[in-house]
Amino acid sequence: MSVTQALASYVVTNRPEDIPGDVWQEGKRALVNYLGCAMGGSIEAALDSAIAVLSPYSGERSACVLGRRERFDPLHAALMNGIGSHVHEYDDTTPKNYIHPSVPVASALFAYASANPVSGRDFLHAFILGFEVESRIGDAVYPAHYEAGWHITSTAGVFGAAAAIGKLLHLSEQQMIWAIGLAATQSAGIREMFGSMAKSFQPGRAAQNGYTAALFGQRNFSTGEHALEGPRGFAAVTARTYDLDKITAGFGTEFSLRHNAYKPYACGIVVHPTIDGCSQIRERDKPAPADIKAVRLRVAPLVLDLCNKRDLDRALKSKYSIYHAAAIGLVRGKGGIQEFTAEAVADPDIKHVRDRTTATADASVTEDQVGIEVELQNGKTLQLFVEQSLGNVHRPLSNAQLDDKFRDQAVLAVPAEQAEALIAATWNIDNSKDAGDLARATVPESGRKSGAIGSRS
Amino acid sequence: MSVTQALASYVVTNRPEDIPGDVWQEGKRALVNYLGCAMGGSIEAALDSAIAVLSPYSGERSACVLGRRERFDPLHAALMNGIGSHVHEYDDTTPKNYIHPSVPVASALFAYASANPVSGRDFLHAFILGFEVESRIGDAVYPAHYEAGWHITSTAGVFGAAAAIGKLLHLSEQQMIWAIGLAATQSAGIREMFGSMAKSFQPGRAAQNGYTAALFGQRNFSTGEHALEGPRGFAAVTARTYDLDKITAGFGTEFSLRHNAYKPYACGIVVHPTIDGCSQIRERDKPAPADIKAVRLRVAPLVLDLCNKRDLDRALKSKYSIYHAAAIGLVRGKGGIQEFTAEAVADPDIKHVRDRTTATADASVTEDQVGIEVELQNGKTLQLFVEQSLGNVHRPLSNAQLDDKFRDQAVLAVPAEQAEALIAATWNIDNSKDAGDLARATVPESGRKSGAIGSRS
Repeated sequence: MSVTQALASYVVTNRPEDIPGDVWQEGKRALVNYLGCAMGGSIEAALDSAIAVLSPYSGERSACVLGRRERFDPLHAALMNGIGSHVHEYDDTTPKNYIHPSVPVASALFAYASANPVSGRDFLHAFILGFEVESRIGDAVYPAHYEAGWHITSTAGVFGAAAAIGKLLHLSEQQMIWAIGLAATQSAGIREMFGSMAKSFQPGRAAQNGYTAALFGQRNFSTGEHALEGPRGFAAVTARTYDLDKITAGFGTEFSLRHNAYKPYACGIVVHPTIDGCSQIRERDKPAPADIKAVRLRVAPLVLDLCNKRDLDRALKSKYSIYHAAAIGLVRGKGGIQEFTAEAVADPDIKHVRDRTTATADASVTEDQVGIEVELQNGKTLQLFVEQSLGNVHRPLSNAQLDDKFRDQAVLAVPAEQAEALIAATWNIDNSKDAGDLARATVPESGRKSGAIGSRS
Repeated sequence: MSVTQALASYVVTNRPEDIPGDVWQEGKRALVNYLGCAMGGSIEAALDSAIAVLSPYSGERSACVLGRRERFDPLHAALMNGIGSHVHEYDDTTPKNYIHPSVPVASALFAYASANPVSGRDFLHAFILGFEVESRIGDAVYPAHYEAGWHITSTAGVFGAAAAIGKLLHLSEQQMIWAIGLAATQSAGIREMFGSMAKSFQPGRAAQNGYTAALFGQRNFSTGEHALEGPRGFAAVTARTYDLDKITAGFGTEFSLRHNAYKPYACGIVVHPTIDGCSQIRERDKPAPADIKAVRLRVAPLVLDLCNKRDLDRALKSKYSIYHAAAIGLVRGKGGIQEFTAEAVADPDIKHVRDRTTATADASVTEDQVGIEVELQNGKTLQLFVEQSLGNVHRPLSNAQLDDKFRDQAVLAVPAEQAEALIAATWNIDNSKDAGDLARATVPESGRKSGAIGSRS
């Protein structure tokens, strides 16, 4: 049996009762984190633009966009959900492959559920399977695929969305093979877009395209049958080296949701240790920004590969600046949405520290770590080494911390009581008769709340 | 000035009067060939399926699908036009980079024009520029990009569609840079899909996605500014080696339309020499199929890389079978749409010859050539070497041959008199006040004609 067929077979035959309890629970944690991010991003300029551009092209407006009052057909809603939930770079990450896994899958599923009846149990099951499909495909091609410059969240994510929607459509094994095939034909997204609106477009498009692939599979639209493993298939074309065994190993016992991490900071994950460590120095030593003469960082090589941005002419670029990360940690002690606005970028204290920060790559430092030296005007040097960054799989956010993160974001879009009800409903999704109720409950009930943050990127 | 900026600047500032007369004329030949293919493919099962799947998701049905009575929003119409015009593998090719260049660009343009007023002169100008943009980007990454397994028609085509629609939208240079950026984020399509419905989906999606990219550019949706040349940009991510100078060299004096070839046979271009040569043997020596004991071909290595299909369980696969190519040449002396149907695949004479055909790769044989040996039951051997295949740039189809090709395909969808009027109108497009008239004139006026060919693939 080919890898593509084995994967299709796994998804098609899997039942909710086959999912271990801890994975089921982690799926709910991922959805809580996802929905909070979707609410927080719902007021972003990138989403405003996408809605304005595509509104004239929407089909029957049967689906809702999370956190918005505009309605779209479900395919467009999947795109919008993906842009909104990813634009703040606040969603989840599986550090083993650097995928932000929930966005492509959940964005498609919430769009589907808001227009089609589906029980919460089936919804969560499809989410877990889609998460697993994209993760396994990502594992197979990581790191070569990512190092080549692919935005693996969208390139692998499209498969997850196809599998999740295909599961809800009850595709046959052959149809699922074709859905995977049409996902492969649309797998796209490059890292050159990091720090621009196009970054969040990519996983949104993956959600929309995966959803589309499942619809075509349902109609028996033929594709090559070896989309993953063929000589001109996804793995061979997009990765110099790959290991297809990772797609099928441990089916049913090993789950990528167990390796999921939820971000405490709204930016690229590899700068998180720096925000964490600089925030600790601020708390411990209380250096005044004006007293800081130089900040010297020792970081993993990937950090400079991804986050070496100094010219922050667009606020979204600040999410990919290791220099900005150090500055907000030392000046504000946090890295929420408000730390990556145009206002924050222009903050004189932050700018002062950012301009005095340098970073060197050190292969002995892991991507969860950072070495920090802060030299003060009085000649004194503050030092700290972060062994494990807050929010990584060894220091995970608790359920209560996830609730707080949800709350902080959701109130940007809806009243506090609506946010609280949403949190409760999300934890209870597997008992819901119609998962679409949850999507509909994200819509602001009257006049959109705005102005809660100072500026948009 | 970066390569991406230089390309954007060229497109934005170019005027119709800057296009040399011979290029203008070749643009019209390409459109005649394109529209004929769109008509011929309009009755194919792949297009029927795509229309059925996506009809519920269409926005306002302001655009027509070439050769069909169903209407869609222009973005979906671009996809449908691309599927229909490419599904028969009968469209054009620039052999220098193996792009089928007209489909992604013209499919978007006809969709746009059928819903928005645009003069024929501006339409043809945008087509020529879009053709040039995709060709130059393709040239820069060919052959490494193609050899890796990318379907270069869609991966490069998305840029051509973005540039062409962006030109009609009068994008600024910065907006065109962003349109190119959003095209890069959607560049996709792999060769594993050859011989399936997904093959034609790819350039269709490129047309739709390029069109979308232009709309987003118009709305100032930001992307990375170095989509082509950046360290994680299109060229570096998708090609082991590339030459970005090819994107900008000879702007305004060199045009890829001068290197365009129109297929005389409805299949992968690298098997054309074999159909041509076997047809010549049939004409010259008149071997009866039953008398043929063995056919031995010496072909360029790429032929076996692309067209080594023996198991023709799907008729579309016959377009990628060098064995089928030899058989139809020897049995029927032609390679029209009817030679690649399920009926033709099952034809006992064709099967007899196909099963007795072998091919060996010979690096001394070019992709325009083939060495043919036909061994008869009586021990006699017929030989022929094709130096230049019919339809290549050195033996181009004449305007009259293009008209015949158009006619043969168009009558599958519309009455003969409508086909004749369409041919005349296409040659006269640059004098048309509204290019949308041409798109609308492809629509069957009453009840769809069908059954003209025996079966669908």
